[in-house]
Parts: sequence; structure tokens; C-alpha cells
Amino acid sequence: MANLDIHGVLPPMLTPFTQNGDVDYDGHIGNIKRWNGHQLGGYVVLGTNSETPYLTEAEKVKLIELTVQYAAKGRMIFAGTGLESTRETVRLTNCAAELGVHAALVLTPCFYGSQMNDETLIHHFRQVADASRIPILIYNMPANTHLNISIEAVRVLSEHPNIIGMKDSSGDVPRLASLINVVPKTFNLIVGTASAWYPALTLGVRAGILAFANFAGSQCAEVQRLFDAGKHNEARALYLKLVPVNVAVTSTYGVAGLKHAATFLGYNGGYVRSPLVPLNRTAQDHIKQLLSAAGLV
Amino acid sequence: MANLDIHGVLPPMLTPFTQNGDVDYDGHIGNIKRWNGHQLGGYVVLGTNSETPYLTEAEKVKLIELTVQYAAKGRMIFAGTGLESTRETVRLTNCAAELGVHAALVLTPCFYGSQMNDETLIHHFRQVADASRIPILIYNMPANTHLNISIEAVRVLSEHPNIIGMKDSSGDVPRLASLINVVPKTFNLIVGTASAWYPALTLGVRAGILAFANFAGSQCAEVQRLFDAGKHNEARALYLKLVPVNVAVTSTYGVAGLKHAATFLGYNGGYVRSPLVPLNRTAQDHIKQLLSAAGLV
Amino acid sequence: MANLDIHGVLPPMLTPFTQNGDVDYDGHIGNIKRWNGHQLGGYVVLGTNSETPYLTEAEKVKLIELTVQYAAKGRMIFAGTGLESTRETVRLTNCAAELGVHAALVLTPCFYGSQMNDETLIHHFRQVADASRIPILIYNMPANTHLNISIEAVRVLSEHPNIIGMKDSSGDVPRLASLINVVPKTFNLIVGTASAWYPALTLGVRAGILAFANFAGSQCAEVQRLFDAGKHNEARALYLKLVPVNVAVTSTYGVAGLKHAATFLGYNGGYVRSPLVPLNRTAQDHIKQLLSAAGLV
Amino acid sequence: MANLDIHGVLPPMLTPFTQNGDVDYDGHIGNIKRWNGHQLGGYVVLGTNSETPYLTEAEKVKLIELTVQYAAKGRMIFAGTGLESTRETVRLTNCAAELGVHAALVLTPCFYGSQMNDETLIHHFRQVADASRIPILIYNMPANTHLNISIEAVRVLSEHPNIIGMKDSSGDVPRLASLINVVPKTFNLIVGTASAWYPALTLGVRAGILAFANFAGSQCAEVQRLFDAGKHNEARALYLKLVPVNVAVTSTYGVAGLKHAATFLGYNGGYVRSPLVPLNRTAQDHIKQLLSAAGLV
Repeated sequence: MANLDIHGVLPPMLTPFTQNGDVDYDGHIGNIKRWNGHQLGGYVVLGTNSETPYLTEAEKVKLIELTVQYAAKGRMIFAGTGLESTRETVRLTNCAAELGVHAALVLTPCFYGSQMNDETLIHHFRQVADASRIPILIYNMPANTHLNISIEAVRVLSEHPNIIGMKDSSGDVPRLASLINVVPKTFNLIVGTASAWYPALTLGVRAGILAFANFAGSQCAEVQRLFDAGKHNEARALYLKLVPVNVAVTSTYGVAGLKHAATFLGYNGGYVRSPLVPLNRTAQDHIKQLLSAAGLV
Repeated sequence: MANLDIHGVLPPMLTPFTQNGDVDYDGHIGNIKRWNGHQLGGYVVLGTNSETPYLTEAEKVKLIELTVQYAAKGRMIFAGTGLESTRETVRLTNCAAELGVHAALVLTPCFYGSQMNDETLIHHFRQVADASRIPILIYNMPANTHLNISIEAVRVLSEHPNIIGMKDSSGDVPRLASLINVVPKTFNLIVGTASAWYPALTLGVRAGILAFANFAGSQCAEVQRLFDAGKHNEARALYLKLVPVNVAVTSTYGVAGLKHAATFLGYNGGYVRSPLVPLNRTAQDHIKQLLSAAGLV
Repeated sequence: MANLDIHGVLPPMLTPFTQNGDVDYDGHIGNIKRWNGHQLGGYVVLGTNSETPYLTEAEKVKLIELTVQYAAKGRMIFAGTGLESTRETVRLTNCAAELGVHAALVLTPCFYGSQMNDETLIHHFRQVADASRIPILIYNMPANTHLNISIEAVRVLSEHPNIIGMKDSSGDVPRLASLINVVPKTFNLIVGTASAWYPALTLGVRAGILAFANFAGSQCAEVQRLFDAGKHNEARALYLKLVPVNVAVTSTYGVAGLKHAATFLGYNGGYVRSPLVPLNRTAQDHIKQLLSAAGLV
Repeated sequence: MANLDIHGVLPPMLTPFTQNGDVDYDGHIGNIKRWNGHQLGGYVVLGTNSETPYLTEAEKVKLIELTVQYAAKGRMIFAGTGLESTRETVRLTNCAAELGVHAALVLTPCFYGSQMNDETLIHHFRQVADASRIPILIYNMPANTHLNISIEAVRVLSEHPNIIGMKDSSGDVPRLASLINVVPKTFNLIVGTASAWYPALTLGVRAGILAFANFAGSQCAEVQRLFDAGKHNEARALYLKLVPVNVAVTSTYGVAGLKHAATFLGYNGGYVRSPLVPLNRTAQDHIKQLLSAAGLV
């Protein structure tokens, strides 16, 4: 399998919905066109911030197709294809492969959480990686899955030729250090939250799949550019300014907050799909205030 | 809407798979035929122990159809139709209605857990109940969802004419007491684990959807019969004998344990679907030993 | 060692403080005199609701002395003597023994929680039980300790001749069933929350150390009297009425809530000791309303 | 109040015990003498790794006295004086002040955890800071307290003239970023685990109270020296080598692991006090192997 060298900032793209709950595909295309103008490493379609558990397979396929079609040349495209069952994950992954996706982000299955031990997870990822026509990235997202794949399981899986990296959204920086210690140099460790972006860079991480980049991709990229240029103080200062906004649009207000911020900054944030509910006015004002304090307005 | 008066023991039916991972529909039919001979109140298809997150919609439909077709006359049939999105939940619920199911068990959505507060859950269940052609049962299963719907949210929802009850699988008996205090007398409180079966009966609960009843339905029913006959000591003694087995086949070993016990006792337990893995030999022996100690062999 | 047969309701006595934060010993005496007039099995001094982690050793000794001195004849007196270190626990336990206490309630040590596994806890309790001149009761209180001693550890410890029982305040009724299955018939299982009082009785538990009994001892005792008389419906109905108050004065508002309810009902609730803060007016009103709804006013 | 500018590495000193469980004061003196030869910023006596919940007040006083007496000139000396009650915390803090300690590390009280909200904690720390004759450092240690003081509470407390900083042992680096954003520049943010040492330095933190420094103080100091000299790659590489050992001697094996490593490297680690149990042989071998892999032997 060809290895990918993943670096830069990739937005896990939000999915805009119309008021009646349908996918706003034109909105999606519009967002991609705008992101194409920013210094981004690529795109993630069907990540956890895309409301992917609310999407039908037909919607998923169309979102992948449009992403492949409208993404600027040279941008990496990853799709979140992890489902609870191994066989369905394989099927959707190979479907994404067929549609032109470069690698699949496979979330740890979690419904029967007490049974998802190292043995089970290793078995699952190996089966997927063996059967997948594109490379696999392990996706660890404890806030949603209530499961934190062990360092040892990642070490074992990193030896598989078709498992080329991992997105870790735990925000746990010491954990990143432990991971760096056990995986091959070529294994792509990707940080999954802007709240850990600068610290991750200082550890040698070179890529971020950051929900925050849905509306502040340039700023995320600038943190990395400054860091790479040895301008540590400037990089850190910019990062510190972004953190409060990121906490608000991920932890505090979730996807509805993320979409509100995106809309406020001119993207097609669109509506959330039920059971998610729109932000109330107080929350909207809070987000505007945070965006303003961070210099994003 | 017609109200249902739910009582007795209902197995949330396991789904047998063949070794290659396909649904063993004949095995399912065989199980129903055998359960038809026991004193059960009805059947739950697509409950959390059915590996429902691993089933395709076509498989779900066929399992519902077969259940409706083969269930003995007069048995209530419930289907687990809760999905993460409200609109998909409505669609699957009305599909189940069309197929002849009497009520739908709607699991609390949970993927964006930090956003699933009272307001959100109330909104979700009301939308589903408004649009559903059959009555709705709230389904609370914290071990899988990492979410415990609040007493207050249940109180509010119990006022909806098409929400006729709740399955609570928390095993939290004081919580059942709190629920009893706030819901109408006609609201069907159903306990969701055999480990709380007898205590729940003493509080006035009259129905149990018990994974354990997949292979020990008669014993579960006997606990209730003894209790109803005022034979408290006998009821309690039988219940106490069953608890250690139930802990093993639910918490400790999960679905693989449940299926192994079922197979050992002559049902079509079948294989688990990946990522779940089969029980190792030590676990198998442990389960046999527990079944034997409980007098189930 | 002589065995104790523990039954009935025992309040884990609150400690009244004056406004300046000193122990109000007269208030304590006054409470005991009033409790002496109720149908209680005895008293627990220095339980978790006594603000024991805020008391000096001199204060503890005086509270024990006064309890022994003023308790009505024939009432069992237990003292909470569990400290983090084994040697200090032994010392305080034997000090309590010298002062006339009948048995010691030994809380699981918990500060280094990740190290408090079965082996460690078994070793600790055995050392304490070996060295103590009075019988030992294991005290499990996960809400405060974030630790839940395993069924297996209790089974092993229940074989020790000087460990005569256990107070379980988890409120986990299925857990009580599991415990009943593994301990000797003579082992005193005591339930530690009024929210599980009636369900525990139905399982065969015969004693409750109930914070609620600080101000509603007669009602707690009445639940048991009705149950023992075979009046299950009356017992259950009374229990159900008490649950909402108990949730408020334990979980929701904690010790400050308990003390406010006690003061409102004529006991010497007194002030809490800092860092605990007094109840605000809204909470006070809520408690009055709950007491009234439960028929306790 | 005079402000302190805290920087460098400070070991939260372990307390060596003899085999019979007494404090080995000579061992403590010996350790200090050896630490005096390393580039350390000072010492913390009675930190959470000192088994302080197992120490009597007389033992605490003597350990403080010896630390003050034997510490090299110019070294800062902090004492952990946080107890559950506010008044006892004040008393012990001023006792430590009298004995020559420069600042007090005050752990968040936690026993009645559900009541330890912002209001309560702010009230507690203000009372302590008002009454203390030496400056106060907030001490946040969720692994032991199951409580994580909020960013907002720290922000409010950082305005108090006698609260000069905070030790945060959560290991949560994004949290450090959030704290940096809200406290005054002069507020001393101290990281409390070697697993976050280098990332914390990159955020601008200048001090670490690191259990790891009990036996590898020079290596911890060297990470900071390299970082301050702009040798980021060398600093990171050294840090990464230390992380696996730190995970073992803090999370995995706890104080017994820490002491074993210290003893193995020539310090007076001594015995643990019961209920802690000594390391078994397998764990001892594992630690030796990790120390060796990290180049510490």
C-alpha cells in the first residue's frame, strides 16, 4: 500500500441542513469552494461533527461525491466510514474508496462498550484494514464513544501495512506523547481538537483534523506556519486566543455552536438535524462575543 | 390511541448468526417456536441484545416480519426502532407499525451525549410519538448509551397520549421508585434486567423485558407467578438463584455470554457478529458452572 | 467474638454546630434524648453525614462519650472509625471500643483510589479486624469514596470472625442481592440509604442506617413494622412517599439539606461546618415543600 | 503580601517508612541532602505522594521542620496543608508558616464532592487565604479528589492577593491553556505531572512539582534547561524518554512504584504505609526495565 504523508489542517466538514431537515448540498458545495481558498491540507467528510449518525447512506454517498468533485486539486480527502459492525464498515469504506477518497477514518465501535477491549478492537481494525482498498486511520473520540483505545492496541495496529495513522480527539497531550513513543515514525498521528493544536505541534505532530477549521481554517494553519518558522511565541499567542472559542463550539455548545459560528462568519452553517436543537439567543450572543474577543470577526 | 396494559416477561430476542456472519432466520424461527411454549407476555425484536446496531434495515424488516408471523396468538410484539436521528426513528417506527408490531421501544439517542439534555430528549420523544402510528415506550439503557434520562423528563413525557411506558435497564431500583411517584398509574414501567426483577415486582412493576428470558423465560415468569400468589419467600429465593447467572450473561460477558448460555440450553444462540468475538473456553466453562449452580441445567 | 444481630433503623447522627463553627454538644444531647423516644435500633456516631472529616479527634471522642452516656438502654451504638491509614483506623477503633461502642463502621480507605483493589482492601480490613477489640462492619459509600468494594472482596472478608457485617450505601439493590448470595446468613447486611429501604427489606435485609432517620426515624421504622406484619402495600406506599425527600436531603442538597430538614422538624440541626455552606432560601423552601408533600410536617 | 516567582522543578517528597510503619526521618534527611546537590527549585513536603493522609499531625510537623532545617539555602519550601475542613486547613497552614514554610499548597476539599461547587470552593479558598500568614497555592488533583476545580473559580480566586498560584495535576494541557488565558501574568501556574512537563513549558509554564523528580530531578531540570536554551528537539526527546517511566510510577503503580524506583536509584524510598501494599516482583521488574529503557540506570 502506498503511504500517505499527512500534514496541515483539515476541517471535518459540517453538514448544512435546510430548515426542513434535508441536506443542503449546494451549501456544502459553497463551503468547499470557500475552503479551497484557504491553506488547508484537505477535507474530512462524514466526521463526527458532520452529524454523520443522522445521515442516510444515500446522503453519505452524495456528500462524498460532491467533496471529491469540488475539492481543489491536491487536497487529501478522508471519509469517516466507521460503523458499529465490521462488515458494514468494510462495505462503506470500499464504497468511499470507489468514490475517490484517499483514506478512511474508522471510529472505534462502541455500542457494546464493555466488550470493546484490546483484543476486540485489534481484531476489528485488522479485518477492516485487510479488506479495505484504501488506507485506514484509527479514529479515537472518547467524548462521543466513551471509549479510549489503549496505547498498546494502537502500537500493535500501527504495524499493519494498511493502517497508516490515527486521529486522536481525546485532547490528552500526555497520551499523544505515549503514542509517539510506540508507533513508527511514518505513522500519521493527527490531533483532533484545536484545544490541543499548538501543544501537539511542539510534540512533533504535523496534522490536525480540527472542527474549529470549519470557520477558522486560516488561523489554524497560521499557528502551524508560525510554529514551523520557529516563531514559537507568536504561534502560542495565536493558539491561546483560539482556545476559548474552540471550547465553546465543541464542548459547551456542540455542533449547533459550531454551525452558528460558521454561519456568523459567512459559511453555510445551516440548521442542525433533530434531535439536536438550535442554539438559543443567549448562547448565540456568547459565541459572537467569543469570536469577537478572539479577533475572528 | 389505545392503551396497552403490559405485563409478564418478554425476552428481548437475541439474533442468531451463522458462522459467516449472516442472520440465521431459521434459527430465529426455531427460537420463537420454543418460546411460544413458555409463559411469556410477548417478544421484543431489535432490542439492544439483538446486536441491532450491526443489522441492516433489510435484516431488521425480515426479523420483524418473522416475529409477527411466528409469535403465538395474543403475544405482544415490540420492536426496538430508536435510531440516532428523529426522522429515521419515525420512519423505522412506522415501518414496524406497518409490519404489525404493537408498540415501539425507542432508545434515547446518545451520540452527541453532552447535548442530550432534558429539553432535547423531550423534543425528540414528542416528535416521534406525534408521528408514530403505534404507541411508544421510552427505552433507557445507560450501560450502552452513557445517558440516564431524568425523572423529570420522563414525568413530562408520560403525559403524552402516545407514550405509554418505559423500559428502564439501569438496574437502579430507587430510581424505579422515583419514577413510580411521578408517572400516571396507567404508564407501563418495565424493568430491563433480571438482576432487578424481584425488587421491581415488590414496587408494583408488572413487566420485565429481560435478556435472561432468552433462555430462562419460565424461571423469570415463575418469579412473578410466585410473587403474585403471595409466595414472597419462594419468589425471592428463585430470584436470588438467578442473579449470578444474569450478571455473567449481561455485564461480564455481554451478548456472547448470553448466546452461549442460550445455545447450551438448546436454543439457537448462534454466532456473534464482528466486532464482537466468541467466548473463550474459560468463559464458556464459567457460564456452564453458573447455569448448573442456578439449577438451569 | 460475640456476634451482634443487627436490626431496625439507626440514624447516622448529624453533628450540630454553632454559628461560629464549634460543636454544639448540648444540641447533640438534645437530639439523642428525642431519638430515644422513637422506635430505633440504635445510633451511629461519626458516620459520613456527621461531617466526620471536619471533626478533630477530641471532638470525635466527646461525641462518642455523649452518645454512650445518653443513649437509651439496649440501643446499639456504632462509631465510624475508618481513617485512611490502617494503623490510625485501629487506634481510633480501639479508642471507641474503650468508650463503650459496640461495633465500628470502617469506611473503605480511598485516597489512593487506583491502588485500592481487592488485595489491598482485604489486607486492610483483616488487619483492622484482627487488632480491633470490637466487631467490625465494612462501610461502602461510593458517592463519597468513588470506590465500590467488590462482591468477591466482601465474600472473603465475611469469613473473618470479627467482621460481622456491612453497611452498603450504594443504593444498588441488585448488588445487595449479589451480596446476599455470598455471605453467611449471620453476616449483617445493612442498607445505607432510605431510597433503598423497602426494596432491601423485601430481599431479607433487616437493618438500615439511614440519614433520613435523623428526622424521620419513626416513619422509617414504620416501613419495617408494616413489612414485618405482612402489610406490603402499606409499607410500600409509605416508602414511596419518603423517597423524594430522601433524594433531596442526601443527593441534591447533602448534609446542609439534611440539617435544614431536621431543624425544620424540631431537631437541633445546627449549622454546617465550612467548607460546606448553608442552604439558600430557594433550597430551604424546596425542602419544606417536599416534607409537606410527604406528610412529615 | 510579597509575591513569589516560582520556577524550576520541585519534588513533592515521598515519605520513607521503616518496615514497621514508622516514619524514617533519617531517610528523609538523607534524601534532602542528596536532592540539595541537584538543580531543583525547592521542595514540597506533605504533597499527595507523601502519603500525607496516613501521617499524624506530629509526623507532619517533624517532616516540615526537618525539611526547613536541611534544605539548601535559597530553595523554596512549600507544604501541603489542605485538609477537609476550612478551620483545620487554616490552623495547619499557619503552623507550617510558623515553621518556616514559604507557601502552602491547599488541596481542594472533596469528601462531600457533590457539594463542592464553585461557590463552595471559592468561599473555602478565600477564607484560607484571608487567614493564612503565608501565600496560598490552589492544588488541583482530580485523580485523588475526583474533582476538577473550574476555570472560572480559578479566575476569581487568582484575584485574591494571597493566592499566588496553582498546582494543576490533571495532566490536561488544553486546560492549562484555558487557565493561562484567565489568570494574571504574575499568577504561578505549576504543572503537577512529568507527563505534561514539556508541553506545559511550551505554553509558558515555568515550574513543575513532579513526583518523578523524587528520583530523576536532574533529568526534569534538564528538560527545562534545554527548552529555555531554545533546544526544543533535545528537550522534547528527553521528555519523551521519561514519559513511560512516569506513567508507571504514578498512574500504574502509584506511590509504591515511585518508592521502588527511588530506592532502586539510591534514594531512601522506604516502605509504604498500610493500606498501601509493597510492589510484587513482576511490577518491580517492570519498573527496572522502564528505568533502564529511559537511560535512568
